[in-house]
Amino acid sequence: MRIVLAYSGGLDTSVILKLMQEKLGAEVITVTVDVGQKDDFEKIEEKAYKFGAVKHYYIDAKEEFAENYVCKAIKANALYENAYPLSTALARPLIVEKLVEVAKKEGAGIIAHGCTGKGNDQVRFNLGIKALMPEAEILQPVAEWNLTRDWEMEYAKKHGIPVSDKIYSIDENIWGRSIEGGVLEDPSIEPPEEVFEWTVSIEKAPDKPEYVTIGFENGVPVSLNGEKMKLLELILKLNEIAGKHGVGRIDHIEDRSVGIKSREVYEAPAAVTLIKAHQDLEKLTLTKWVIEFKSIVDSKWSWLVYNGLWYEPLRLALEGFIDEAEKAVNGEVTVKLWKGNAIVVGRKSDNALYDVKMATYEKFSTFDQKLAKGFIELFGMQSVLAYNMLHGVHSTSNISEIKEAIKTLE
Amino acid sequence: MRIVLAYSGGLDTSVILKLMQEKLGAEVITVTVDVGQKDDFEKIEEKAYKFGAVKHYYIDAKEEFAENYVCKAIKANALYENAYPLSTALARPLIVEKLVEVAKKEGAGIIAHGCTGKGNDQVRFNLGIKALMPEAEILQPVAEWNLTRDWEMEYAKKHGIPVSDKIYSIDENIWGRSIEGGVLEDPSIEPPEEVFEWTVSIEKAPDKPEYVTIGFENGVPVSLNGEKMKLLELILKLNEIAGKHGVGRIDHIEDRSVGIKSREVYEAPAAVTLIKAHQDLEKLTLTKWVIEFKSIVDSKWSWLVYNGLWYEPLRLALEGFIDEAEKAVNGEVTVKLWKGNAIVVGRKSDNALYDVKMATYEKFSTFDQKLAKGFIELFGMQSVLAYNMLHGVHSTSNISEIKEAIKTLE
Amino acid sequence: MRIVLAYSGGLDTSVILKLMQEKLGAEVITVTVDVGQKDDFEKIEEKAYKFGAVKHYYIDAKEEFAENYVCKAIKANALYENAYPLSTALARPLIVEKLVEVAKKEGAGIIAHGCTGKGNDQVRFNLGIKALMPEAEILQPVAEWNLTRDWEMEYAKKHGIPVSDKIYSIDENIWGRSIEGGVLEDPSIEPPEEVFEWTVSIEKAPDKPEYVTIGFENGVPVSLNGEKMKLLELILKLNEIAGKHGVGRIDHIEDRSVGIKSREVYEAPAAVTLIKAHQDLEKLTLTKWVIEFKSIVDSKWSWLVYNGLWYEPLRLALEGFIDEAEKAVNGEVTVKLWKGNAIVVGRKSDNALYDVKMATYEKFSTFDQKLAKGFIELFGMQSVLAYNMLHGVHSTSNISEIKEAIKTLE
Amino acid sequence: MRIVLAYSGGLDTSVILKLMQEKLGAEVITVTVDVGQKDDFEKIEEKAYKFGAVKHYYIDAKEEFAENYVCKAIKANALYENAYPLSTALARPLIVEKLVEVAKKEGAGIIAHGCTGKGNDQVRFNLGIKALMPEAEILQPVAEWNLTRDWEMEYAKKHGIPVSDKIYSIDENIWGRSIEGGVLEDPSIEPPEEVFEWTVSIEKAPDKPEYVTIGFENGVPVSLNGEKMKLLELILKLNEIAGKHGVGRIDHIEDRSVGIKSREVYEAPAAVTLIKAHQDLEKLTLTKWVIEFKSIVDSKWSWLVYNGLWYEPLRLALEGFIDEAEKAVNGEVTVKLWKGNAIVVGRKSDNALYDVKMATYEKFSTFDQKLAKGFIELFGMQSVLAYNMLHGVHSTSNISEIKEAIKTLE
Repeated sequence: MRIVLAYSGGLDTSVILKLMQEKLGAEVITVTVDVGQKDDFEKIEEKAYKFGAVKHYYIDAKEEFAENYVCKAIKANALYENAYPLSTALARPLIVEKLVEVAKKEGAGIIAHGCTGKGNDQVRFNLGIKALMPEAEILQPVAEWNLTRDWEMEYAKKHGIPVSDKIYSIDENIWGRSIEGGVLEDPSIEPPEEVFEWTVSIEKAPDKPEYVTIGFENGVPVSLNGEKMKLLELILKLNEIAGKHGVGRIDHIEDRSVGIKSREVYEAPAAVTLIKAHQDLEKLTLTKWVIEFKSIVDSKWSWLVYNGLWYEPLRLALEGFIDEAEKAVNGEVTVKLWKGNAIVVGRKSDNALYDVKMATYEKFSTFDQKLAKGFIELFGMQSVLAYNMLHGVHSTSNISEIKEAIKTLE
Repeated sequence: MRIVLAYSGGLDTSVILKLMQEKLGAEVITVTVDVGQKDDFEKIEEKAYKFGAVKHYYIDAKEEFAENYVCKAIKANALYENAYPLSTALARPLIVEKLVEVAKKEGAGIIAHGCTGKGNDQVRFNLGIKALMPEAEILQPVAEWNLTRDWEMEYAKKHGIPVSDKIYSIDENIWGRSIEGGVLEDPSIEPPEEVFEWTVSIEKAPDKPEYVTIGFENGVPVSLNGEKMKLLELILKLNEIAGKHGVGRIDHIEDRSVGIKSREVYEAPAAVTLIKAHQDLEKLTLTKWVIEFKSIVDSKWSWLVYNGLWYEPLRLALEGFIDEAEKAVNGEVTVKLWKGNAIVVGRKSDNALYDVKMATYEKFSTFDQKLAKGFIELFGMQSVLAYNMLHGVHSTSNISEIKEAIKTLE
Repeated sequence: MRIVLAYSGGLDTSVILKLMQEKLGAEVITVTVDVGQKDDFEKIEEKAYKFGAVKHYYIDAKEEFAENYVCKAIKANALYENAYPLSTALARPLIVEKLVEVAKKEGAGIIAHGCTGKGNDQVRFNLGIKALMPEAEILQPVAEWNLTRDWEMEYAKKHGIPVSDKIYSIDENIWGRSIEGGVLEDPSIEPPEEVFEWTVSIEKAPDKPEYVTIGFENGVPVSLNGEKMKLLELILKLNEIAGKHGVGRIDHIEDRSVGIKSREVYEAPAAVTLIKAHQDLEKLTLTKWVIEFKSIVDSKWSWLVYNGLWYEPLRLALEGFIDEAEKAVNGEVTVKLWKGNAIVVGRKSDNALYDVKMATYEKFSTFDQKLAKGFIELFGMQSVLAYNMLHGVHSTSNISEIKEAIKTLE
Repeated sequence: MRIVLAYSGGLDTSVILKLMQEKLGAEVITVTVDVGQKDDFEKIEEKAYKFGAVKHYYIDAKEEFAENYVCKAIKANALYENAYPLSTALARPLIVEKLVEVAKKEGAGIIAHGCTGKGNDQVRFNLGIKALMPEAEILQPVAEWNLTRDWEMEYAKKHGIPVSDKIYSIDENIWGRSIEGGVLEDPSIEPPEEVFEWTVSIEKAPDKPEYVTIGFENGVPVSLNGEKMKLLELILKLNEIAGKHGVGRIDHIEDRSVGIKSREVYEAPAAVTLIKAHQDLEKLTLTKWVIEFKSIVDSKWSWLVYNGLWYEPLRLALEGFIDEAEKAVNGEVTVKLWKGNAIVVGRKSDNALYDVKMATYEKFSTFDQKLAKGFIELFGMQSVLAYNMLHGVHSTSNISEIKEAIKTLE
């Protein structure tokens, strides 16, 4: 029996690694996918072999993550419940893809992961595996074997698995960092400063603002301060710059896939900055009809990805919409990073429906007036009529005194 | 011929006041509605009589504005295009109501206002008047008589109407301040510090944060830092406090009713703070189903009000929804005001779907695991199936090796 | 141990009734709620006692069903996936309410029902019970004890429970009849004539049409052919009349709550006729803004009720919208019933936004022309601009040859 | 001065043709685009020259209309306000395209058409011309010169233009026929039989039904009764077959672009049949998530096309969604045409999410039961909690009597 295990090097997956050998007599192949978490991957590999892995894979998927996953999220202004940039949610399908690749290559019929039965990640892992490799068995030991933290701690000690005493549960990738547990579970209490690593406090942020200019092509960031660069590089740089100014902290009440509400805290300096800039550029370059409809498309996209429905055909259809719409989203946006704020202070674009409009605006100024009259009349006709009827008021004056008066003026 | 004129005391309406007497021989009754603009109303009255008004009305509608208009906007999280709290838009129907009251009382058949033919306010004024008093004639001299700024200036000089040299066009009420014109028309340029009056710059904001706690009942703010107060008072206080911390500046590209895109700059310290707090409390107290649907209801409400469709029956229907939903929105939210940021750092409520959930969460922890399994399976069934079919992969294994193995473990 | 059982008198619930006594030693109280199914309720009572019920309740809830459930469905134009009038789905929460009433009165801590684990009704029963009586245990023997049809048949024979040989599984109430099973499970095969009881085939329908006129007040049917009557009576009559003309057969692919697609066949003569009439009257009396938004509200309402979320706060909020909107839905609609067709051929209303419009239409005819010009210009401005920009075409002609020419004509 | 005129050969456009020569001294080039209207095109050409056209174009665009316009409408299930298949609305942008082609080829700077200022077509013509040829002047003589019917009649008589005495105003193309005017303007009166030409009355329809089977590929009809054919041919045949059975009459209240409600009557046998079949096949082949969202996309598409916003970027974005979604819409649908009814009685597809489901359904039958339990619990968790809290009921029983009892049974 061969099992592929998504291995982070932490307590849960180390215990599982050991346990699956012990209880199932399985050969376990460990896989660590690098999506930008700040880990020591050599140490993780060491651990994997130490705890009995027959083979270990380290897969650097950072660039793939930026190009094929984060890129789509930016175009979709992806903020689940208007707040969470989906960092963890976005990385899960990529990790699943890698696990399945290894499982197929290694002839393993079982894929295991360390998710509990209470969170969102089990939904993302399990549905991803079912989609990509329906013939695989999914093994979710924490849930299926009802492993409790206490039991795990004891088991770990027995088997020489190092047990950290950290209070918070962290997940990280280039698109953001999520912090759970401890005092954060009480939504009435302000998150203590110690939970943050990527962002400084407003107090410690520089007194002077810093301006960054982001260039977009087809809705995708392609340059920073005039310098062309790959999305991965741009995100890494922006995480640093914006984080230094305290930008990107998020604290809100979130509805998990499984129906539970929970208080969630994130840091996502690049994500917050880029999505603000992107949304602003859309307002300049997209028609009001596209903006209005795209906001529905965008939230549905976020909802699907958050809830593990990455492989649902609806995602591709939504992207069919988004890719077409984004063709006009070209230009540059300047963001001022200052004391926790990311403020868009300037934007320009060859596709601006604004600049051109300004030109024609002047041209219109002589006859625009009559245009508006007709517009208002027809635009509001039904509403006015309905209100009048409901309140029993009716227009009676066909011949108005003013018309005559105005004529004399003309 | 009697005309009721919405009179601000500024250049446009002073010119119109004079002009309507001169050209139409009209008796003009001026009306100034106080919705919180920081004007000298005695001086305005003086001016009105000086330029020939036969009668002047000053109407203090601040409390009515807070209770019947702003209140609804808070419950609807009203932000047009996710940015503009509708300050001016909200006040227009109230002003119209007052104009109509005066027109009826004074037997005037004509209502005049100073809007141009290019903006949003003409839509709001004209549709409001048509709804409330369809028998009235609407006179919009700037548009109908094609008055240009230059012509107005000259006319003003001739008639002793004072001409200010201010660059920006301002509209103010308790819910916000809008600034237009001058360099702001170029969306690529950062708004100069001089345009702001209600908010200090981040630089000048205090180094220490200030916490405010807002209490809500049925979605409406009812207390500040534990002290019960009327909405009007609460807003006025919060404008001051939040403004002092540089909170509430808005700068975005906006789609006007008439189809033009324009760059708009606002200050709205209380509005920004209260809507953030309100949205956060909704996440704690409303089910995910209500939150998701209400976001559609909310944006439609904002769209209607922005576009002058206050009297459209749809607004009342949307409020039917909102009022029912808001019954659960009770509790307190703590906001940290600091260097331009308004950060929600704590929330509590007897209606929290979170706290109770935490309790039951624990209870569930023993059997939740199987619940999630069934949930994931059925929740993702169609998506997985569709993906498998499309990619020609099919689940084949009915009898799995793992099931047997697991049994031995149990 | 006392159990309240939802008892239909059929095989499943009779087996359960017996089994719960035998296996659990329970005292079982049977409840049959009459929502218009064409059953012999005395016989059902006899059976209940025969198979060991300690007490039997027959509850006539037909009028309550019409007034408090069907009434809301009509106002919401309730058609799940544009097809199914929700007959069964609507009745479930009412039945649950009655079960809970009995359970509380009789001091029973357990409520049992005969649903399988594959359908929609288990969702509706279980969520309803959890909402109304969370302290109650829910017993769903077919699912929990894995009862198969074969096992049930054998058990029934052993215990003298009559076993019918009917192929189809039927559920009926005043709002419709659903037919499942047998050949209907193959969606490529036309439903055989034998499955229908409430509607004649088109062949056997009368050669001559029949006109019915339905009067509505606030969106609710209140009269038939000019005669005022209660909704229950109106529905019963209309089921007969429309059914006689072959109106009301439905055959479509439906997405069940649990994720399965299934082919469903229904008969609902009154429902189909009334909803058509109601929708038509809405088009006459509601503004286009309300119609457009209400269609979203309506489908969400249907979705909630279909999926057993009757007690979800969102339903009440949607009804807040609907009740407000329906205030204008007054008038009469004439429907022609003929050979399977229900065709709206006439409608009138004092609230018509049409008749009044016709009047003003004439008035407008002299100057409407310029109104439309301005409307079109502003309505289409952004779209035209965006298209021009994208295709590199720009308007260049400011002074047109035609303008001069036209002037000479004027 | 050269003018290109959209010429139908009817009274309006013949009068305009003459008038533009007379009043403007213009050279007029007439263009008749054949989109399937049942006209004598040779006679129209004769007339054009007789009334002074310097050149006449007859352009057969039927196939282009089917392939590039109707095709998209089918994929979008296009029914404006759930009723109107957009026949006229769809043809307008194609006609505009042809007019612009001719104008450019012939060096004409003006494009003229015969629309009044009250209807929808002016919006479609004018916005189309502005998009495709912004440098062109648009001449809309009926509106701009305020031509009344009486004046036109007199003018026609004077200039030998034949005046018909038909009561109804007709517009026709392969996708449908619209009938306006006369008694139809009273929405309370049933349309008289004489207005229909493409469909027989139910009375005269055959006593026996006729089955047609329509094959779809990527959402587009490609075969009729097993025979592959081009969409144009398929539509023409189906218009005949379905029309013969009285299928395709539409009568509803419609909201025009300009805000007026009007009663509209259409015949569209192929459109009604194909859209029904297409929608049914979608239910079989698309996931519930896609179906739900696509219904929003579809109505927005119809809304845009109805309102003349064919060139709005949003249309292309919506089609990006639709084209992706429709990849799964392959298969065959059988429709029974009978006495005015078009009833889908069978459907099959290799992409069916139903047939496969049936297979797996069986597989699930042993453990599905527990899956549903978990699903229901989590699916309804928040709703139940919210209801309980609101009504002050709380679950208290942690240890239930039944659990013990059930255990003894297992």
